[in-house]
Formats: sequence, structure tokens, C-alpha cells
Amino acid sequence: GGVDKGVDFANYFCTYGFLYHQKEMLCDRVRMDAYYNSIFQNKEHFHGKTVLDVGTGSGILAIWSAQAGAKKVYAVEATKMSEHARELVKANNLQDVVEVIEGSMEDITLPEKVDVIISEWMGYFLLRESMFDSVICARDRWLKPTGMMYPSHARMWVAPIRSGLGDQKMSDYESCMDDWYNFAKETKTYYGVDMSVLTKPFGEEQKKYYLQTSIWNNLHPHQVIGVPCIIKEMDCLTATVSEIRDVQAAFSSSITTDLTRLCGFAGWFDVHFRGSKENPARHEIELTTAPSEENGTHWGQQVFLLQPSLRVRKGDDLIVSFSMSRSKENHRLMEVELGCEIREASGVHHPRFTKRFSIE
Amino acid sequence: GGVDKGVDFANYFCTYGFLYHQKEMLCDRVRMDAYYNSIFQNKEHFHGKTVLDVGTGSGILAIWSAQAGAKKVYAVEATKMSEHARELVKANNLQDVVEVIEGSMEDITLPEKVDVIISEWMGYFLLRESMFDSVICARDRWLKPTGMMYPSHARMWVAPIRSGLGDQKMSDYESCMDDWYNFAKETKTYYGVDMSVLTKPFGEEQKKYYLQTSIWNNLHPHQVIGVPCIIKEMDCLTATVSEIRDVQAAFSSSITTDLTRLCGFAGWFDVHFRGSKENPARHEIELTTAPSEENGTHWGQQVFLLQPSLRVRKGDDLIVSFSMSRSKENHRLMEVELGCEIREASGVHHPRFTKRFSIE
Ligand SMILES: Nc1ncnc2c1ncn2[C@@H]1O[C@H](CSCC[C@H](N)C(=O)O)[C@@H](O)[C@H]1O
Ligand SMILES: Nc1ncnc2c1ncn2[C@@H]1O[C@H](CSCC[C@H](N)C(=O)O)[C@@H](O)[C@H]1O
Repeated sequence: GGVDKGVDFANYFCTYGFLYHQKEMLCDRVRMDAYYNSIFQNKEHFHGKTVLDVGTGSGILAIWSAQAGAKKVYAVEATKMSEHARELVKANNLQDVVEVIEGSMEDITLPEKVDVIISEWMGYFLLRESMFDSVICARDRWLKPTGMMYPSHARMWVAPIRSGLGDQKMSDYESCMDDWYNFAKETKTYYGVDMSVLTKPFGEEQKKYYLQTSIWNNLHPHQVIGVPCIIKEMDCLTATVSEIRDVQAAFSSSITTDLTRLCGFAGWFDVHFRGSKENPARHEIELTTAPSEENGTHWGQQVFLLQPSLRVRKGDDLIVSFSMSRSKENHRLMEVELGCEIREASGVHHPRFTKRFSIE
Repeated sequence: GGVDKGVDFANYFCTYGFLYHQKEMLCDRVRMDAYYNSIFQNKEHFHGKTVLDVGTGSGILAIWSAQAGAKKVYAVEATKMSEHARELVKANNLQDVVEVIEGSMEDITLPEKVDVIISEWMGYFLLRESMFDSVICARDRWLKPTGMMYPSHARMWVAPIRSGLGDQKMSDYESCMDDWYNFAKETKTYYGVDMSVLTKPFGEEQKKYYLQTSIWNNLHPHQVIGVPCIIKEMDCLTATVSEIRDVQAAFSSSITTDLTRLCGFAGWFDVHFRGSKENPARHEIELTTAPSEENGTHWGQQVFLLQPSLRVRKGDDLIVSFSMSRSKENHRLMEVELGCEIREASGVHHPRFTKRFSIE
């Protein structure tokens, strides 16, 4: 409700119209292996079945579904990428099985209900892009009561981390402010205008940009300094929009690394392909975007920086509150509030602090 | 007509809402000096007058107009930057003269007609952004019959150039295609999907990106290898939208550098502050964005690459046709068609070729 389609296209869909962008996803081996294995190691979920691919992009998941034996695959794509998908389907000789439909999932009509909904709908930190809304809409309209979701489950994780990013961003911010002071001085000298009243709003704008916007990063596992916590679990068969619109969690995490610095928190997700209760997967597949030495993904992790960082030691407890909601200006972006209290193993309790971030 | 306001805001206005972006313009000394001098060296055009600043941004031109003695300045700005402009006006003690109005020029109403319209409406290669439309609209509605425009005149230039950018972009394009071939091979091997049908559209997409989109560059004057030509002259007092919607020109340019390579063409603009016929400027000021060793601007030049480059020598003539129109998808972006025929001094005539470019 209330979303201007043209604006949504300008802000969101437009990038998906480029093969370059689709290729980036198709080159993510962790992502590709997970979907590929989930389909081909559970062929019986596809064999002779009708499948709906929500947001087919290049058509890859629809093609795999057909190759695994689906009777019919509806491949829905909002952008002109649908034309490339249609070509790809034909070139792989699956035009009798895969029907590419250009349109937004919310608007189009299928001739029948389906056995399986497959979709790669996950954005940064799972929910950015809010594309799962479209999957829910598809599910409620087009999935048979006995149908199943691919993936079937999703989880969001948060963990305390150390990172050099905070100091780097802080120094970027500071040199940007130095620039500003210089600019303000010169503008006064050469052009007779006093800019100092804009120093505060400029500083706020830049602070928001450098320090209050989460940062994409593929962290090394060693950078995780405490116990990762699940802040949200979702059954894709039953999840509702109201359940994902606001995500709130309170948890505590113990520091597991000795004498280190708490530089912020990282958020990531995993999804599982488990089939359904009646038809569990023969081979359960996991797709995780957790920090990993070898298996980084294009999703990476979202880093929420604390600046300055705080000294912590093994055994300290972090009492954390996390809340994420959609940005008022753009429902596909998020606002996060993170509260944290450090309880040292020594017994000392530090005062609670709260920080706000945007996921852009 | 036909422009969705929300989409226009998402695509265009949004960046102007950031002080960071306004600061980039405020740091362009060539730009600042030209407007500053045009106002303060022609104070009599402002003293006791009513002024309209179309797209006031930070408010700088409105403030200068007031400092030069204007009786009243209406400073219109479409974005929330208007709030910062209002603060800046107050901090410089001009709130009794400058009235900041938040709104789009096309929508707002002024209580009176004005003597001077000042505006910094120029985009890359003059017309990108199509903001002059809004100035025309303001002029036709709010300028007194005796009023004047600041700037008063504008010109577009094109010249043949040499540049290493073409080879660089070509090699970027080629390595991007190598990546693609590798990707296609791996996708076939590991994931059983034949991607080759997408090679051609991917190649076209990348060629468009690397080679058929004009490139921002601040060229060195030595890179201009032939006589620059004016392809459009405009009197800001009389210009109409239909006159700038399509720009067409045919010209010939002689190569002035011996034994060099024609790597493409560069486009730039200049504007002049001449007051009006009845009230000519005491000191005529020019703002040029031509290639310059010392005085680069944030506009730079737009480079249209020919790939491969062509050998030319002093005295060769280039017979050029140029045409620029607005992109159908976004009226603030441009499509260019460049035709060129080389007539060697030796008498040999090369066949004419034509290239298309986008200005994004
Ligand atoms: N509501 C909607 N209706 C149709 N397509 C949508 C949609 N929301 C997002 N999409 C499309 O969904 C795609 C998500 S990216 C995933 C592409 C492809 N399934 C793959 O796994 O490689 C994009 O191409 C996007 O344009
Ligand atoms: N139709 C319109 N109505 C109101 N403002 C407009 C407009 N079209 C463009 N603008 C504003 O015009 C400004 C152009 S940039 C120039 C800013 C300022 N005059 C300076 O010289 O520094 C932007 O801030 C943009 O938001």
C-alpha cells in the first residue's frame, strides 16, 4: 500500500534490468551451490510438479527446476530481464516447461496453483529490499495447501565484532570535516558569506553517511569476538508481512576473545531448504552468509559500527536490544536501533548506550 | 508534461538535498568567481531591484544578490535544502531581503514580477538535467518585460580530441567480456546451463556502458587537436524549450595538430553575463568550462569516444554532424548522434561513419 510504482522502479528494480547485476549473483558460488543442490538433491520435490519462481531474473532457478523434472514452471520477473530469461530458457530447450511472465508478482495471474514456490528474495541482512513481501503475496495466492517453499526457513544473526572499519570511517569523517572548515573559511574570505551555521547540519549529514549507515563487509571469522545470536527465525510457509515489518530482539552475548575491542556488531542471515513437514527434504541444504574464510558471498555481512570502540575481555556479557523497521521514505531500506550494556566478568556494569543506523 | 514527480525526485532532485553535493558546487572556484564577479561588478543591476533565484540550493546566489543591494530576493528551491538556505540567509542577516520558498519553480506563486532572474541551471554539456526548462518557465511567468537574465547567454562547443580514455575503456570492456566467457564456461560446467545466448546482449550492455556513454573528463588543452566549433548559441531571454529539446548542428573542423590520432570529440559550454540590451553589463563576465590547464570546473567536458581511434594530420578536415535529444526514459538525460567524415588534406575522403552515445 502507498508505494509509487514508478518511484519503486527508479529506486529498486532498475538495477535488476542489467545482465551485469544478474551476473554478480550468478557468480556467487555459495548462493549458486545452495540452490543447485537444494533442487538436484531433492529432485522428487520437483519431478512432475508445478513450480513458481518469484523474481526469476536471468531465469536460472526456473531452468534448474525444469531440468529437475518439473512439469511446468512459471517464471515471473518485473523487469525487462524477463526477455533475456525467455531467450535463456529457449536456448536450453525448456520452452515447453518454463513460461516466463513479465510483470510484478503482485499484479499477474497464473492459470493454476503451484506445488512449489522457489525464490531468491534475500537482500542484505535478509530483509533489505523487502522482497519477501512479494513472496508472501505469491504464496497466499498461488501455493496449494500442500505446497512447499524453497527456501523453507530463514534466520537472522547478530554478533559482536572487532574491525578496523570504525577507525577508518572516523578518519574519513574527520578529514571531510577538515575540508569543510577550510571551505567555510575560504567562502568567508573570498565570497563574503558566513557558512558556519551549516557546519552542524553538514557534520550530521556526514556522520550519518560515514558512521550511522551500516557497511557491507565480508568479515573474517576471527573478527567475531562473541557468541552470535539468532534475532529472528522465520518459517517461509507461515511468515506474514506484519511479522517481518518490525524485527525486535533482546539477547545477551558473551565475549569469547580475550582482551579485545568491541568495534560494533555484524548482522547476517542463513536460509534452509527443508521441504515441508509432509514432504521433508531428503537432503537438507543450508545457505549461510556468516563470516567465513573461504565462502564469502555477495551479501557479506552488514556492520554496525560503535565509535569509539570499547575495551572488552573474555567472559564479559553484552546485553543487547535490537530493533529494525522499514525506512519511512523507502520501504525497501531499513532503520536499526541497537542498545547495548556491557557487564564485565569482574562485576562492573557499564551504562547502557543506544545507537541508530540506516541500512541503505 | 508526462513527468512523474516522484520519479523525477528519486532520479534527479534527491542528490541536491545533500550539503555534500551543494558544497562540491560551492567549491568550484571558476563557477563561484564568475557568478560573484557578474553580480558585484554589475551591482547597479541588483541595487534596489527584485530578483528571483531559480534553484537556490544553499542560497548562495540569493545572498550575493541581496549583498549587492537587491530590494527583495525570491529564492526558490525544490528540495529540503531550502531549510539550510533559510538558515544561511538568517546567519548572514539578510532575512529581510531574501525569502526562501520551498517548492518546485513550476508550482509556486510569487507576489510580484521581478527585474532579474539569476540561476545556476547548467548541467554537464550545458543541457543535461534539462533544468533550463524551469528557468524558461520562471522567465515567462515572472520576469518583467524590461527584466534581465543572469546569465544572459549560453553556448555549446564541440572539438576533436585525443585521449587515452578510449584505449582504457576498450580494455575495460574486453576484460569484462573475458570475465563473461569464463563465467559462461563455469556455469555450463558446474551448473548445467548454457549461457551463450546471453553473450551478445551482455556484450551490448557493456559496450553501451564503457564505450557508448559519454565520459566526464577535465581535458588538457593540448588534447584538443582541431578547431572547436560552436554548435548552439542561446539568448536566455528568448530561448524556448522547443529550441533546446533537440540540438542539431553541422560543422567542419580542421585538425591543427600534426600527425596525431582522432580519439573522439569533447563537448563543453560557456555562459556570459551581459545584462540586457537596454541595460548592458558594465563588466561582461564569462564562465567557460573549456579544457584548461588551471581552471578546471566540476562540469569538466563530456567526451564521446571513437574506438578505434583514427590517424589524422594537420590540415585534415572533419565534416561533422551532431544531434542531441532527450532520452525517452528520462527527460533529464540525453542521446547524442555524431556523424563524421574525414577529408584528408591529401585529397583522400574517408567514408562517413556515425556513432550514438548517451549522456547519463
Ligand atoms: N514483486 C516482484 N515481481 C516480479 N519480480 C520481482 C519482484 N520483486 C523482485 N523481483 C525480481 O526478483 C529478482 C531478484 S534477484 C534473483 C534472480 C534470480 N532468481 C536468481 O536467483 O539469480 C530481480 O530480478 C527482481 O527484478
Ligand atoms: N524546477 C525547480 N524548482 C526548484 N528548484 C529547482 C528546480 N530545478 C532544480 N532546482 C534546484 O536547483 C539547484 C541547482 S544547483 C545550483 C544551486 C545554487 N544556486 C548554487 O549556485 O550553488 C538544485 O538545488 C536543485 O534542487
